[in-house]
Amino acid sequence: MRTNSKNSELLERARKVIPGGMYGHESVALLPSEFPQFFSRADGARLWDADGNAYVDYMCAFGPNLLGYNHPTVEAAARAQAELGDTMTGPSEFMVRLAEDFVGMIDHADWAMFCKNGSDATSMAMVLSRAHTGRRKILVARGAYHGASPWNTPSPKGILPEDRAHIIYFAYNDLDSLRDAVKSADGDVAAVFATPFRHEVFQDQTTPFDVYAKGVRQICDEAGALLIIDEIRTGFRLSRDCSWARFGVKPDLSTWGKVLANGYPLSALLGAEKIRAAAQTIFVTGSFWFSAVPMAAGVETLRLIRETDYLERMIAIADRLRAGIAEQASSHGIGIRQTGPAQMPQILFENDPDMRYGYFWTAAAVRRGVYLHPYHNMFVTSALTEADIEKTFEVTNAAFEELKRSYSSIEPQSNPFVAARLGAIAAA
Amino acid sequence: MRTNSKNSELLERARKVIPGGMYGHESVALLPSEFPQFFSRADGARLWDADGNAYVDYMCAFGPNLLGYNHPTVEAAARAQAELGDTMTGPSEFMVRLAEDFVGMIDHADWAMFCKNGSDATSMAMVLSRAHTGRRKILVARGAYHGASPWNTPSPKGILPEDRAHIIYFAYNDLDSLRDAVKSADGDVAAVFATPFRHEVFQDQTTPFDVYAKGVRQICDEAGALLIIDEIRTGFRLSRDCSWARFGVKPDLSTWGKVLANGYPLSALLGAEKIRAAAQTIFVTGSFWFSAVPMAAGVETLRLIRETDYLERMIAIADRLRAGIAEQASSHGIGIRQTGPAQMPQILFENDPDMRYGYFWTAAAVRRGVYLHPYHNMFVTSALTEADIEKTFEVTNAAFEELKRSYSSIEPQSNPFVAARLGAIAAA
Repeated sequence: MRTNSKNSELLERARKVIPGGMYGHESVALLPSEFPQFFSRADGARLWDADGNAYVDYMCAFGPNLLGYNHPTVEAAARAQAELGDTMTGPSEFMVRLAEDFVGMIDHADWAMFCKNGSDATSMAMVLSRAHTGRRKILVARGAYHGASPWNTPSPKGILPEDRAHIIYFAYNDLDSLRDAVKSADGDVAAVFATPFRHEVFQDQTTPFDVYAKGVRQICDEAGALLIIDEIRTGFRLSRDCSWARFGVKPDLSTWGKVLANGYPLSALLGAEKIRAAAQTIFVTGSFWFSAVPMAAGVETLRLIRETDYLERMIAIADRLRAGIAEQASSHGIGIRQTGPAQMPQILFENDPDMRYGYFWTAAAVRRGVYLHPYHNMFVTSALTEADIEKTFEVTNAAFEELKRSYSSIEPQSNPFVAARLGAIAAA
Repeated sequence: MRTNSKNSELLERARKVIPGGMYGHESVALLPSEFPQFFSRADGARLWDADGNAYVDYMCAFGPNLLGYNHPTVEAAARAQAELGDTMTGPSEFMVRLAEDFVGMIDHADWAMFCKNGSDATSMAMVLSRAHTGRRKILVARGAYHGASPWNTPSPKGILPEDRAHIIYFAYNDLDSLRDAVKSADGDVAAVFATPFRHEVFQDQTTPFDVYAKGVRQICDEAGALLIIDEIRTGFRLSRDCSWARFGVKPDLSTWGKVLANGYPLSALLGAEKIRAAAQTIFVTGSFWFSAVPMAAGVETLRLIRETDYLERMIAIADRLRAGIAEQASSHGIGIRQTGPAQMPQILFENDPDMRYGYFWTAAAVRRGVYLHPYHNMFVTSALTEADIEKTFEVTNAAFEELKRSYSSIEPQSNPFVAARLGAIAAA
């Protein structure tokens, strides 16, 4: 019998001392009540909530769990350094090794700067591209997520027009729109942010056209602007290099985070040689940016990325997952759309404008021990085992059955924030 | 025989893959060549560089080392949670416990939001005060450090006028200047940032007047503006509560970081009840903000702060340190100024406009195994032992002797960045 009394108790206590009880991307405020807010344990691809309920986890901490929670050699590397020292009066030699290894793996990169949040890396890229070019405008695809700083957070509360005075938006996968944005900047474009593929909440994911990726590079070159590829969500799940390397496209800067140390806090900005001089002029820092343990874990994570077949295994098992779910949906006569790379799947339901079916199906899966997300892209870990996949299929099939049985009587999904968000997307 | 070959080798390698070889507040670029850049180990108040040279460390990782590096019960709490899970798909119950404990300790606070960098907390405070008041202007003391985001980083490179369009500067410890700033904002003041005491690089530190602290609160109340106290550098080194509690002054928001988990990455924004509703409307987040291990370490750190005499011991030993160094300087006939709280000492030399004596003296101390800083406030840890203090006095005395012997022949300190900085301070 699944209980959630501990989760409920924690939520009640949290509401007294944390605004809303929780905030940010890991808040379950927009999710069905089956989704637990608090977790106690994680191992491989499995996660346990505060009540001890186990899940096969397809969120991977919203990305960081690339190689499996509690990965033995990453943990050993971290523990060995933790016994010596972590946050000290300067970095350890792991900072140099990590930069050497990372730059050696990413074709476009000649140098690295490390930080903590993804937002740190994207903000540094923005500031640095302005410092390098002496120009002001930053071009960003409309709706793309590049962090939660004043210039890019999705919520307008507390944000001023000046915070975005020199941000120009264009439509993803649309070169004409990008050209128009460049034109409107009138020679003042410092950089264009490129997302490896379009992965917005509540929407199908879109893979860029080859001609789009190459076109973005060409437009940047013609405009004398830098190209920044934001790999924070996608890094090392699509490729061992920058993900647009497959199009032959090299950015000038790239931003990384989440997976770099398999869950230890670390993000990074990588850059090409020509921007090194400007990078020495900006002042960016943070109290914990130079801590040794995440960098030791990062060195081992990058080694595993280089030396193991984690990526091929991840893609193979993610493809099986996608095929199996497609087959189940089809056998139940339920229309679904699985979009984006199989390692970062988005599963939405046909004829589901208010998301009631997606919410119902994922809640039914969570109740049975598989943590799926109804509106945010999911993440597959290379630690996913045969047993995890079998458990998943058993649960997703039961969830489809339950959905089918209840189909005509499912209440509209009624969260007002979700409704507002869906309304905004429909209107766009 | 002290060697630094490993440090030199690492610096050479770092210069190839990291802009300038290092960046941010832990860069030794402005320090004498004796200062090592890379460290290998830390324990208690001691630190070992990459070559294995040991130091009594008076930087404490620029603050985080409050209770001693490698503190046994903090490490045990962190390790116990690390074995269960760290960065997961949501927070652990430690987030709730930490918020409860923290809010229970800080008189003005009714809620907490956690983040990673100090800059995260100050930027959240800025955005939130705008969201709460519907106003735009943020008042900041000229020269005060509140982070390294576009709106507050000390370097102008890559920063646009719009990033600071609604920041108004006033003079610290000067109520008339603050009143003028409020007046110039013409009813549009969202918040005033207050630094617990003035602790700027290259300068004597200044403790605020009682009348100043109370006056800042009163001016905020009259203007309908929020008062934000930035405790990131000072937190729990001056007091177990907000440091202006000693003046009877309660801020509306306070920002914390560095010491919260004794070196584990964690920062926080605390707020009063009236701002809770607005806090639920802003969107702020980060990939690692909800990780369990730093919060478990934080719960234990706060417990030690509440239940031990760490603060009284720290103040007592810091006072002894200050008195001993004053006596040594005096006995050598060398004029020094020790400013700020003894737990966060700044030591500058008389008649030393280009800092040549301070640079010489701290370099002589570093060479002998005591890590002192010539221009940034230092930090004392409560783990400082009798043996550490004895070692320190032996070394500082020898450094004073060397300074005295060489006094008339010491070359001007020639770093061009330092010279520019000092010139700017002299001109201000």
